[in-house]
Amino acid sequence: MRVPFREITLTPTPTATGQEHNPAVRVYDTSGIYTDTSASIDLHLGLPGIRSPWLERRADSESLNGLSSDFARQRERDLTTEAMRFAHRRPPRRARSGSNVTQMHYARRGIITDEMEFVALRENLRQEENLDQHQGQDWGAAIPRIITPEFVRSEVARGRAIIPANINHPELEPMIIGRNFLVKINANIGNSALGSSIEEEVEKMIWAIRWGGDTVMDLSTGRNIHETREWILRNAPVPIGTVPIYQALEKVGGVAEDLDWPVFRDTLIEQAEQGVDYFTIHAGVLLRYVPLTANRVTGIVSRGGSIMAKWCLTHHKENFLYTHFDDICEIMKAYDVSFSLGDGLRPGSIADANDAAQFAELTTLGELTGKAWKHDVQVMIEGPGHVPMHMIKENMDRQLELCHEAPFYTLGPLTTDIAPGYDHITSGIGAAMIGWFGCAMLCYVTPKEHLGLPDRQDVRQGIITYKIAAHAADLAKGHPGAQYRDDALSKARFEFRWEDQFNLALDPETARGYHDATLPKDAHKLAHFCSMCGPKFCSMQITQEVRQQALAGMAAMSEEFVAQGKQVYQIL
Amino acid sequence: MRVPFREITLTPTPTATGQEHNPAVRVYDTSGIYTDTSASIDLHLGLPGIRSPWLERRADSESLNGLSSDFARQRERDLTTEAMRFAHRRPPRRARSGSNVTQMHYARRGIITDEMEFVALRENLRQEENLDQHQGQDWGAAIPRIITPEFVRSEVARGRAIIPANINHPELEPMIIGRNFLVKINANIGNSALGSSIEEEVEKMIWAIRWGGDTVMDLSTGRNIHETREWILRNAPVPIGTVPIYQALEKVGGVAEDLDWPVFRDTLIEQAEQGVDYFTIHAGVLLRYVPLTANRVTGIVSRGGSIMAKWCLTHHKENFLYTHFDDICEIMKAYDVSFSLGDGLRPGSIADANDAAQFAELTTLGELTGKAWKHDVQVMIEGPGHVPMHMIKENMDRQLELCHEAPFYTLGPLTTDIAPGYDHITSGIGAAMIGWFGCAMLCYVTPKEHLGLPDRQDVRQGIITYKIAAHAADLAKGHPGAQYRDDALSKARFEFRWEDQFNLALDPETARGYHDATLPKDAHKLAHFCSMCGPKFCSMQITQEVRQQALAGMAAMSEEFVAQGKQVYQIL
Repeated sequence: MRVPFREITLTPTPTATGQEHNPAVRVYDTSGIYTDTSASIDLHLGLPGIRSPWLERRADSESLNGLSSDFARQRERDLTTEAMRFAHRRPPRRARSGSNVTQMHYARRGIITDEMEFVALRENLRQEENLDQHQGQDWGAAIPRIITPEFVRSEVARGRAIIPANINHPELEPMIIGRNFLVKINANIGNSALGSSIEEEVEKMIWAIRWGGDTVMDLSTGRNIHETREWILRNAPVPIGTVPIYQALEKVGGVAEDLDWPVFRDTLIEQAEQGVDYFTIHAGVLLRYVPLTANRVTGIVSRGGSIMAKWCLTHHKENFLYTHFDDICEIMKAYDVSFSLGDGLRPGSIADANDAAQFAELTTLGELTGKAWKHDVQVMIEGPGHVPMHMIKENMDRQLELCHEAPFYTLGPLTTDIAPGYDHITSGIGAAMIGWFGCAMLCYVTPKEHLGLPDRQDVRQGIITYKIAAHAADLAKGHPGAQYRDDALSKARFEFRWEDQFNLALDPETARGYHDATLPKDAHKLAHFCSMCGPKFCSMQITQEVRQQALAGMAAMSEEFVAQGKQVYQIL
Repeated sequence: MRVPFREITLTPTPTATGQEHNPAVRVYDTSGIYTDTSASIDLHLGLPGIRSPWLERRADSESLNGLSSDFARQRERDLTTEAMRFAHRRPPRRARSGSNVTQMHYARRGIITDEMEFVALRENLRQEENLDQHQGQDWGAAIPRIITPEFVRSEVARGRAIIPANINHPELEPMIIGRNFLVKINANIGNSALGSSIEEEVEKMIWAIRWGGDTVMDLSTGRNIHETREWILRNAPVPIGTVPIYQALEKVGGVAEDLDWPVFRDTLIEQAEQGVDYFTIHAGVLLRYVPLTANRVTGIVSRGGSIMAKWCLTHHKENFLYTHFDDICEIMKAYDVSFSLGDGLRPGSIADANDAAQFAELTTLGELTGKAWKHDVQVMIEGPGHVPMHMIKENMDRQLELCHEAPFYTLGPLTTDIAPGYDHITSGIGAAMIGWFGCAMLCYVTPKEHLGLPDRQDVRQGIITYKIAAHAADLAKGHPGAQYRDDALSKARFEFRWEDQFNLALDPETARGYHDATLPKDAHKLAHFCSMCGPKFCSMQITQEVRQQALAGMAAMSEEFVAQGKQVYQIL
């Protein structure tokens, strides 16, 4: 079993007597084979199906002769979309009659799957070493020193973690989302009616995982989203999530009232057979909760939530996603699609944070978690949104309680509304905090949030900000081994190993670029200063001189003074 | 008395029957007359001395016939610097013999100065209205509903707030730094030996306050810093801080060992007579603490701290800033320069956070606070640095206890070391949190931190990030009126008043630019969507439809159902 890591080799530290070796730093890597120089990549062929032999071996699913979804079959016959279709599809797989193919189903029967072994190997960074790091405050999480396959199994079995891994996504490099694992981040891509092509979306996915997106949600709402999704999935080593109601709405001409269970059901099957790993389902937006949003400053800000609210009100009926929840579970378990139970009533402004509508829906999401678990279907819970700092912890605490510790997956939260253009930052603050409190995955927000569709640079800004938030959370939780990279980078910084400092950074290109903006020459990469303070005022350089002085002088001084019966240096 | 505010006028909300007025939003403004279209600005003349009549009236200081500092007199006679000198200097003022001109001295005698009145007016935003906002969690702060001049006086008297206001800086628009006032931010500017001119530094100061810098520190270490500082001060409506040891070191040719009390003393007087409002003084770096840094990953990362450590070790003597502390206080009170007691031993990496060296120094800073207060000299305390999230609160709690509630002024802290190029964000997270916990002023960090000298765009990024952190902290503390701007912006967003949304943003230019990147036409400023979701998927638009539906339909439906004895809508 080959499990991906990135290894950052470091240069040695020069010493008086020669050189001191600095061990390479192994870091978690989400970029698939796209950063493997030995890999041959052809987007038209898609990635190799590394999970295919595992799925064959389990023999709980079968290859179908054709697609099960009416819509998918119709698109397959449509000559106008032929040119844009991904050509090398595998036949779809589905659970054999009577089988349940979910990771949770295996876990609960005590079986460790290949996916569980894979993530166990992947989650261990330097846990095996006896690392000296801050202890952390984990707020009741239960992170073991070493992540074993059995631990992964037990966490999946009790619903405290999920491995989103559709059997129709064999290209996936499995990963795990749970409070006792590394905090993960999601990047959203997807076109809107106003722009972006298939190529752009595939490129955006690869770009997103290059910078560290652990999962990617395809939120396309524009044209040809069926075909776009196929291209993305066939080239994606990370789990892909979607919000199927978006496509269902397209199918009924954008008229929310015209949605119904048959069209939604067909959409679920269509996407499940393409390999989507998790579905956001807004089944908690109940008819009786909608009036609770009436006096809000920003009403309903979830697209799925507003669509379902409109449907409920127009028909004066209960949300069909709620009434058909068991039917949805039957589909989920036939392909192992995980639920991301949508927070359709999340607050969209500071004023609306933690209100009755939000927490009413959360109660229902907890109830639905129990229902899904009866089917052994994996569940995570989506969370807000806009929340001032002092009200963030209540979100985490209530979610843990009401949703029985199912993983929490939040959008930010944004800690103020007054900085459009910088909402990666307003939300990065909240994301770091809720990650520390126990949130398992953080959905990124880009600088364009509220203003427009993000471009590549926005995606990068959003991802790096969220990698920072997730890592800051791991550090604060005291995740074993998390501090290793910080220590390696700080040591490189102190020793003026500039190249090592850049390479250890979350975004080496930007770090190097900023440094070189003022000191571009190669010789400057060896300099004991940068342009911020200049050569005479570099504290690190002065400290090194102090340290040498201290080592040489202090011992002698100290001895002398002690000999005189005095005590000079107070050690606290 | 004219007190600066910025008023953001809003467009009305269209309604079925006409228009609904949206009141203008008044916000705190740091930009001086530079954003006043009626003001005439001439950098060569400097700003008007708005405090001059107040200082005259107090009659506790006198105009001197010439400069008191040897170095300043020498520069005045130096023909080679004549061309670059600011031409319209006022004669320097100094306390009359036996007088103490500090704000604290007045406060303690029960006298409300003009500066206190000014800041009292300035600190009130919408506190007088009965605002509906989240209550906040203030961790023991004591923020009154209305800030009165008497409250300002009492906070300054007990040392819980400072008004940095040198009597030689009459151009200042006074502001206050304290836990029971709005959280403030500082922006650092200043050239290093490697670049930047006088013009650039003055422009950088104006640029910094335009985006919201409450104070500006001039950290110049390069050429002509005496002249640069004069230009900055004469054009600065905000308090200017410096680290005098930097210039003192220049005067002794960059050799730390050659520093002594006379050269430092002359530097203090030189800068005090120019009008510097607060001095960072690293008097807590004691000889016996230096060995505590020996096993750190990054040693001493404060420039001033490393200089003093080197001096102490070389001479094997106690820090002369510590031994001459009372002498320094005598100078401070003759001009009303406030102390910013430097944290020379702050941690420069996650590994070194909250260690023995850091807290040993903090204990000494607490002792020095008591000493300064005996002279009625105003004090704030500098803090870290690099601290993982779970260890931030300990910094605030210890500081409050050890330093008797003197205002805390921290650099971030950075919550991880692994993101050079993004340290405005790694530190913005920590800054927001420590601001919430009670930190009074947040020193910004730009994206170039650790890599190079920031340019204009970096300064702007750093400032907006810190405005976000400070405001998020105000919201979390429940600062009266703080949520008003969030609510106004969110209401504008919900109502698609795009121009209002931009104008209410911390950085209107960037918000507008991001929006216009995809939807540039004027008509789009009225559109009920943006390119992020497109016209059919805008949740806010759908919600508005839902709301109309709800208003019209629900009431009727409800009546009908209630008539039938059923209850439809659960109100939690």
